[in-house]
Amino acid sequence: MKKSNGGKLKIIPLGGLEQIGMNITAFEYEDSIIVVDCGLAFPEDDMLGIDLVIPDITYLKDNYEKVKGFVITHGHEDHIGALPYVLREINAPIYATKLTIGLIENKLKEHNLLRTTKRKTIKHGQSINLGCFRIEFIKTNHSIQDASALAIYSPAGIVVHTGDFKVDYTPVFGDAIDLQRFAEIGKKGVLALMCDSTNAERKGFTMSERTVGKTFDNLFAEHKNTRIIIATFASNVDRVQQIINSAYKYGRKVVVEGRSMVNVIGTASELGYLNVPDNTLIDIDEMKNYPDEQMVLITTGSQGESMAALSRMAANIHKKVSIKPGDTIIFSSNPIPGNEKAVSRVINELSAKGADVIFQDVHVSGHACQEEIKLIYSLVKPKYSIPVHGEFRHLKAQAGIAESLGIPKENIFIMHSGDVMELNDESAEITGKVHTGAILVDGLGVGDVGNIVLRDRQHLAEDGIMIVVLTLEKYSNQLLAGPDIVSRGFVYVRESEDLMGQAKSVVEDAIDSCLDRRISDWGKMKGVIKDSLGDFLWKRTKRKPMILPIIMEA
Amino acid sequence: MKKSNGGKLKIIPLGGLEQIGMNITAFEYEDSIIVVDCGLAFPEDDMLGIDLVIPDITYLKDNYEKVKGFVITHGHEDHIGALPYVLREINAPIYATKLTIGLIENKLKEHNLLRTTKRKTIKHGQSINLGCFRIEFIKTNHSIQDASALAIYSPAGIVVHTGDFKVDYTPVFGDAIDLQRFAEIGKKGVLALMCDSTNAERKGFTMSERTVGKTFDNLFAEHKNTRIIIATFASNVDRVQQIINSAYKYGRKVVVEGRSMVNVIGTASELGYLNVPDNTLIDIDEMKNYPDEQMVLITTGSQGESMAALSRMAANIHKKVSIKPGDTIIFSSNPIPGNEKAVSRVINELSAKGADVIFQDVHVSGHACQEEIKLIYSLVKPKYSIPVHGEFRHLKAQAGIAESLGIPKENIFIMHSGDVMELNDESAEITGKVHTGAILVDGLGVGDVGNIVLRDRQHLAEDGIMIVVLTLEKYSNQLLAGPDIVSRGFVYVRESEDLMGQAKSVVEDAIDSCLDRRISDWGKMKGVIKDSLGDFLWKRTKRKPMILPIIMEA
Repeated sequence: MKKSNGGKLKIIPLGGLEQIGMNITAFEYEDSIIVVDCGLAFPEDDMLGIDLVIPDITYLKDNYEKVKGFVITHGHEDHIGALPYVLREINAPIYATKLTIGLIENKLKEHNLLRTTKRKTIKHGQSINLGCFRIEFIKTNHSIQDASALAIYSPAGIVVHTGDFKVDYTPVFGDAIDLQRFAEIGKKGVLALMCDSTNAERKGFTMSERTVGKTFDNLFAEHKNTRIIIATFASNVDRVQQIINSAYKYGRKVVVEGRSMVNVIGTASELGYLNVPDNTLIDIDEMKNYPDEQMVLITTGSQGESMAALSRMAANIHKKVSIKPGDTIIFSSNPIPGNEKAVSRVINELSAKGADVIFQDVHVSGHACQEEIKLIYSLVKPKYSIPVHGEFRHLKAQAGIAESLGIPKENIFIMHSGDVMELNDESAEITGKVHTGAILVDGLGVGDVGNIVLRDRQHLAEDGIMIVVLTLEKYSNQLLAGPDIVSRGFVYVRESEDLMGQAKSVVEDAIDSCLDRRISDWGKMKGVIKDSLGDFLWKRTKRKPMILPIIMEA
Repeated sequence: MKKSNGGKLKIIPLGGLEQIGMNITAFEYEDSIIVVDCGLAFPEDDMLGIDLVIPDITYLKDNYEKVKGFVITHGHEDHIGALPYVLREINAPIYATKLTIGLIENKLKEHNLLRTTKRKTIKHGQSINLGCFRIEFIKTNHSIQDASALAIYSPAGIVVHTGDFKVDYTPVFGDAIDLQRFAEIGKKGVLALMCDSTNAERKGFTMSERTVGKTFDNLFAEHKNTRIIIATFASNVDRVQQIINSAYKYGRKVVVEGRSMVNVIGTASELGYLNVPDNTLIDIDEMKNYPDEQMVLITTGSQGESMAALSRMAANIHKKVSIKPGDTIIFSSNPIPGNEKAVSRVINELSAKGADVIFQDVHVSGHACQEEIKLIYSLVKPKYSIPVHGEFRHLKAQAGIAESLGIPKENIFIMHSGDVMELNDESAEITGKVHTGAILVDGLGVGDVGNIVLRDRQHLAEDGIMIVVLTLEKYSNQLLAGPDIVSRGFVYVRESEDLMGQAKSVVEDAIDSCLDRRISDWGKMKGVIKDSLGDFLWKRTKRKPMILPIIMEA
């Protein structure tokens, strides 16, 4: 291992370790910072009404002048999705492979950031210099093309970051992962390996993407007389390629449906990542010109997302496609944890319409299983192991693998977002913590919905709201109007006139008692109303709606 | 097959076919009705704030005098949970096996219905006469003891209803499923088979419950030096028995924790379904007297339910148990669809506390897989097949199995709740539809939360509420007070004073324009306020909070 000059490299994950998604990590050496990936996360179930979640980049803002650029491993949302938000605050150049840059440019266009953002396309095997860092892009395989691992050369030593990856010896497009290069860099001496943990709990090896193509061929051969509809991930261009291949082989035309699918396929075709035989792809409006047995529809909605094309077909609200008895519908996907019920609902709806729904064994993962992780460790032979990409359980599973391969326990680090790790070939330790967090995006609002608002939404969702309004005379504090009680989300009023009438009496009594006791502090009066109405409703219904007294003065 | 007198049996599922849970089916012949099972369902994700869901039994109320009794197959919530609600309207006797009656009595006690409800314990092999029906209880196996299939003898022929079942040749407690009796009844000639579909998509055979006992023995042998905590389903008494067996073998004391677990175990012990060696079960407060390696804790929370004991331990809010590094925690369960993320969160929390979490291959299902379903069909040889218990996809999978066994397609019926099927040995057809539905229970309210309230809750959850209050003078319609704007769950006000100020101006302008145009109809005025404020907020934030104008007069 090359001796460092005693300086230390800092590795600071700003997201991605407490949750799936929102991957972003800063590498800092003296006056240089590079940022690897800049992803978003999808909201948790309790983040009501939130559209997406982006990382808090206060640390980067505080060190703006050091930031040399964003280095992006691949084009999935959890690695590129926060760029449009982060670029508004940190305008640094972006470095990535061709397809990744293409997908990022789609986003920049949407957010009107294309003109102001520098970006550079890097080829696998190529290196770039950013400040005191050199970063080499290494070919890997994943469920999107053009994925890269990074070798990050710093004065303190080399860090290898795998990004999301799998080992596919027979990929559909392009080359297999560049195992030789991993080995070469390993030979030089690698300080730390940051390796994908997503499938670290799974034994064995992830199958080649090409095996799914075989499955498609078999399914197309079996279902010669029906229309075929296939749902898969919009960004899995290789999957779409294999569907197109089978379609071509079996004399079917292909329609692509669903906005995100159309976008990704468009970009991938333009950039040469998709090979479509002439006259194979047709517009959805041309479907009517072909008999069912000559059609394949590739669609979004493999996760049961309620607004996606397949879900709309299942619910009978798609404008151009109706499900017919006999349709063969293939889910070329597994449900992402949390989506199982939604997927099941769509399968039920499709089955009930008479479709033949196939959802087992038509998918392979894009992430490395245990044997692949062992392979990478054995090629790279890092001094330190820093498992990344996954929930805590996955990181821990990888830590177990690293230990089983002989890496000493004290050289394995399960980091948390915000941890500052300082390392060189002499030592590695967590030396501090920087501010990190999740910023909620709701509509146009970025960060204006916080815990208080979310707690209110949860309260409102649980039992609704009951609003009490009254008007008091300014000087005398006499009751001029009200109290009126209005409820929403609490109980269907027509069925509970009795309850609402009694609630009103309770409030009137509360107000009277306040006025009798000459309580003129509105805060106190609101408290009395809240308590007495709350008690009454709990006793009668065992529910706790939000109670909101509003007092006006006239 | 015995010839019927030409009369027809009606089979009317009142729930359980559009969803998992809420199993209840009426069997009607002339002036006799029997009701098989009376279960609840757990709320779907979009039923905000709802505690549980029970079937609409209007049809039974309309035919009260015909109802001879409730016949219950086993003691799970989705088969007994609605009884306390339904009994208030249909006070008919309950027939079930001993443990099932024991669990039902717990519920009746809670709801103060013990005194007014007739119930009778039936043994396997025994029959009861209800109106013109004879019902025979047949021993089966399931993830709760004392489960029964029913042979329902009617003048129109015999219907066999499996209830929830699996085939366990080596059950932990009691006998294996009475396959001989299924065969004997099959020999007599069976009109229809209603068979459990839950696992109809799964190939092969469900493993014996006893295999889990072997796994426990191995795990106890491997983890001799740590505390062991095992989460499983509260009602799986055999599972608890096997944990106790392993604990005894390896010299550990057992603590049972979690309210529902303590209840079920209590009832099962009292009734002789659980065999606990002396001095094995100890109270949770005695734990401190034993070293960790002599303790096993059996707990609720295997589904990640946020208030269950294990989840509270994981979140550090359990009063009596703290998770320690080195604890071995075993999930003896699989996540029920929809619970995957919650389970994963608990696993992450436990792992982060240093516990060793084991969650693979420590569970077997309680439901029959494809080979077991085929076995039952082959013994019973029904004329008609009516798949039950499962989502549509599962019913359809069983229909496929029935067809593969030679039952003509036109003799297989995938029914919907409310369908009236009339059948005898000459024909079977859906002849009508009765009213059914799901009644939502929220706190003490049964049925007072309907679609309007749920839609309001969803709206409130998504973007919150903005309330506009104003007071008008009664005669002149002059503005006396307000407009005041109050929001909850929309945006954190301190961060958006500017937005709220502008919103107020928008409302003031709207009111002015109404007053100028002498619009005195409050409905119209509210409409104008709603529209103008709604437009403003959408433009500024791309959000649509509920807008609620309240006008008072003074």
